This record gives sequence, structure tokens and C-alpha cells, in this order.
Amino acid sequence: MNIFEKIINREIPATIVYEDEDTIAFMDMGPIIKGHTLVIPKTCCNLITDPPDDVVCKLMIVAKRIAAAQMKTLEADGVNIMQNNGKAAGQEVPHLHIHVIPRFKNDGHQWNWAAKSYDSSTEMEAFAEKIREGLIT
Amino acid sequence: MNIFEKIINREIPATIVYEDEDTIAFMDMGPIIKGHTLVIPKTCCNLITDPPDDVVCKLMIVAKRIAAAQMKTLEADGVNIMQNNGKAAGQEVPHLHIHVIPRFKNDGHQWNWAAKSYDSSTEMEAFAEKIREGLIT
Repeated sequence: MNIFEKIINREIPATIVYEDEDTIAFMDMGPIIKGHTLVIPKTCCNLITDPPDDVVCKLMIVAKRIAAAQMKTLEADGVNIMQNNGKAAGQEVPHLHIHVIPRFKNDGHQWNWAAKSYDSSTEMEAFAEKIREGLIT
Repeated sequence: MNIFEKIINREIPATIVYEDEDTIAFMDMGPIIKGHTLVIPKTCCNLITDPPDDVVCKLMIVAKRIAAAQMKTLEADGVNIMQNNGKAAGQEVPHLHIHVIPRFKNDGHQWNWAAKSYDSSTEMEAFAEKIREGLIT
């Protein structure tokens, strides 16, 4: 059982900020910025592609509400919402979770937004065509 | 009018991979990793907290489908889903958008996941309490 499942089962403590029948939101112990919150479903699933759409919707609505609260009462200037799928994407705990991270002017964090470019418009179109194929099959 | 609104209005071209009544998904011209796709609502809104819940749900369901396609036909090992709100969070275009970024083992990208810590459990609880206040007011 992973750490998030133990939090759901109350086997280990967490600082919970929100809970309903389907969802728990609690403080990340290793915050990118203080106030960093995690939103998870109570049902077992790993990737965003695993659960039915209604589970994804409920999670994202809670993430939206947490973001609003961070901007209102933490007075955050911005918020990052991030959801990592798979070790290659940096996912560390194999239970679906959404990071909601308050951001402040001059908070010192940089995401390393290392934008690259395509060799040609033909190359970009080839990637697009593969994605289109994946959407219809 | 910003660049995404011009794409919605077909005033500038984009490499579109998906479109419905409410949503467009197209290739990011400056990909973190090739295949990087943006999902946006057709209605004007800036932050995730701006539109009604149903708009947020629809966007996230499309992001989920794009992620599935990237793993299936691009054979991505993982996917980052990221949504930045406000300049302090790195948002560059003031129209709500979700980044869906395919990730591959050894693709060379690192997000700079600079986790920090709280000075004490009391400090963490103080941040949590502020978020709880924001959720109920």
C-alpha cells in the first residue's frame, strides 16, 4: 500500500484541508512553495487515464476550489496546477494526484520551461497526425 | 485579442488535433517535448477559477484523452499535465490553457522539482488553516 492509500485509510496522518465522499486534499510535506496542496481520489488509480471521466471532473473541480482559496486567503499571485503521469514524467507515488501550488511574485521558483522547436512544420504535423490517430482508435 | 483567441477565430493558423463545440486542442509551437499539446476553451477566460465548473470538466476530459493518445500512438512513457495561472506562475497567454506534454525515458527534461520544507508542523498547519478558510468563505 502506498503512502496516499495509507492517508486515505487513516493509517498515517496528513494535514487535510478538504474531504468529501470521493476526494481528499492535504498539504504536500515537501512543498515547492509553502501552501502546496495535493488533491487525490479515494478510489485506487494511478494515471489520469485510469479512472472514469466523472472521477477526473470531481478532482479537477476540487483543484479549482483549492486554487481559488490559495489566491484568496494565502493571497497567492498565481497558481500552478500540475499532474504527473508515470516515472518518466516525475510521478513518485503511484496513486493519481494533482499538485496545486500557490505562486508569489519573486518567490524564487523557476520550472525550467525549456521550450524547444520542431525541425519543420512537416515534423510538427507528423506528431499531430499521430495524436489524432490516438484519439480515434 | 491574444494569440489563442486568434486561433479560435481562425485569424492565425494552428496545427489542430481536436476540436468540438467548446474546446480546441493544438500543437504548442515551442514544445517542452515534441508532441506537446495545448487544450483551450473557446469561451474567453483567463484563470482556472474564472469559468463555470462544466467548462473546467470538459477541458480536463479532453486533456485526459490527449494524454491517452500521446501514450498510445506517440508511445510516450509518461505525460505531464500542467496548467499555469497568472504571470507569477509562468502563464504567458492570458487565456486559460492546459499543457499536455508527452514524456519519454531519458528525454533529458527536468522540471526543477525543488521541494522545500516547513519550519515546523505548526507552520504547515497555519497554511492549511488559511486554505480551509478560503474554501468556506
